[in-house]
Amino acid sequence: MSWVAQLISLHPDMFPGPLGHSLAGRAHDAGTWSLDCLNLRHFGTGRHQSVDDTPAGGGAGMVIKADIAAAAIDAARARQPDLPLLIMSPRGKPLTQERVRALSQGPGALIFCGRFEAVDERVITARQGEEISIGDYILSGGEIAALALLDAVIRLLPGVMGGAFSGDDESFERGLLEYPHYTRPAVFEGMDIPPVLLSGDHGAIADWRQKTAESLTKARRPDLWEKYAKKMGKSSD
Amino acid sequence: MSWVAQLISLHPDMFPGPLGHSLAGRAHDAGTWSLDCLNLRHFGTGRHQSVDDTPAGGGAGMVIKADIAAAAIDAARARQPDLPLLIMSPRGKPLTQERVRALSQGPGALIFCGRFEAVDERVITARQGEEISIGDYILSGGEIAALALLDAVIRLLPGVMGGAFSGDDESFERGLLEYPHYTRPAVFEGMDIPPVLLSGDHGAIADWRQKTAESLTKARRPDLWEKYAKKMGKSSD
Repeated sequence: MSWVAQLISLHPDMFPGPLGHSLAGRAHDAGTWSLDCLNLRHFGTGRHQSVDDTPAGGGAGMVIKADIAAAAIDAARARQPDLPLLIMSPRGKPLTQERVRALSQGPGALIFCGRFEAVDERVITARQGEEISIGDYILSGGEIAALALLDAVIRLLPGVMGGAFSGDDESFERGLLEYPHYTRPAVFEGMDIPPVLLSGDHGAIADWRQKTAESLTKARRPDLWEKYAKKMGKSSD
Repeated sequence: MSWVAQLISLHPDMFPGPLGHSLAGRAHDAGTWSLDCLNLRHFGTGRHQSVDDTPAGGGAGMVIKADIAAAAIDAARARQPDLPLLIMSPRGKPLTQERVRALSQGPGALIFCGRFEAVDERVITARQGEEISIGDYILSGGEIAALALLDAVIRLLPGVMGGAFSGDDESFERGLLEYPHYTRPAVFEGMDIPPVLLSGDHGAIADWRQKTAESLTKARRPDLWEKYAKKMGKSSD
């Protein structure tokens, strides 16, 4: 059965976009995942199919109306029941590889792409949406955030990355950033490949990779390192 | 002068993608930013224009060769000198709104979109690339990460969001997640808009927004809350 990417957006023409190419595009053609996109505008009211209004209490920007968003969500659920409702928002819980993996093991996701200032808080409560953030920066809308989430999920679907792929060695899967990579030529602009990697000594290579992954994580991501050290029972110094 | 988005990718057909629509699309048509995309494949060697090779020391995946990546970067720099080189990678420094704002005030960016397992570490050193991560999850390549970064930058370029826009009130700009938003109707499925927002008392509204922003940040993002509390403690000294 296909993993279902169901979207609600004011810009359905942004999908599949980059997901129509490369790995995700081939997986779509193979039926591994499917796309169902609803245009929020079709649920708007009045002559201009308006979907937003000014924020209660004043302030900049516009807010997507609860009744309009709810109508779109209900229509989506009538077509594809039982998908978790994700609302892309910088106020959301940060997306993690763990959450991506869990989503990839489910039936799909209904993703609401916000625009303007925000969506009325009451529809998030009423329809039990899970607000998800892809990072601590502001996008012009939820569409590219949805593309990022979908790309991360799709590559984990069965068969997409090829038979031998497990992903176990990647950044985040073990709580560390990944070690550095090298390939031919042996010398590039006077820089050698670290000799241990050419030694054929698999134990020494594994050690070197573990150590460089640890020192990189410590230097760049003290937040990840602290969690890792706690889990492994190491001192975080 | 246009802000320059220069890209190196194996999938140039993914650009502008979603950035060809809506705000970013209009800003592109208006000449606010421009796109220059180099196909990494054109720098490949041999009959298949190969760009990658197996990792030194063994392991899964393929590594983009240092000499190929360097040739593409050098060609890009010959066309557009003086742009910072950003390498999209989950091993990178997490992208922040602060970094986005700084990039939007510069001339543009040269963005290298990785694919496969990684790019040879030596080219990052030799060409002084800055590895940037958009979040703690793994994408199939750097292209969607580049789209996210560009979208975040483009909306901050002069004129893109409209005259009155400052962004000062948004999530992250003040170190807090944004307060909840509401708009008409006054009652949605039995839920009222919080009465203070309809009171017309601007002081009380500002207080309520500050308090809800604080409690949301505390609950959802203890990491941000800790930084915010520390900063506010210092400023009150």
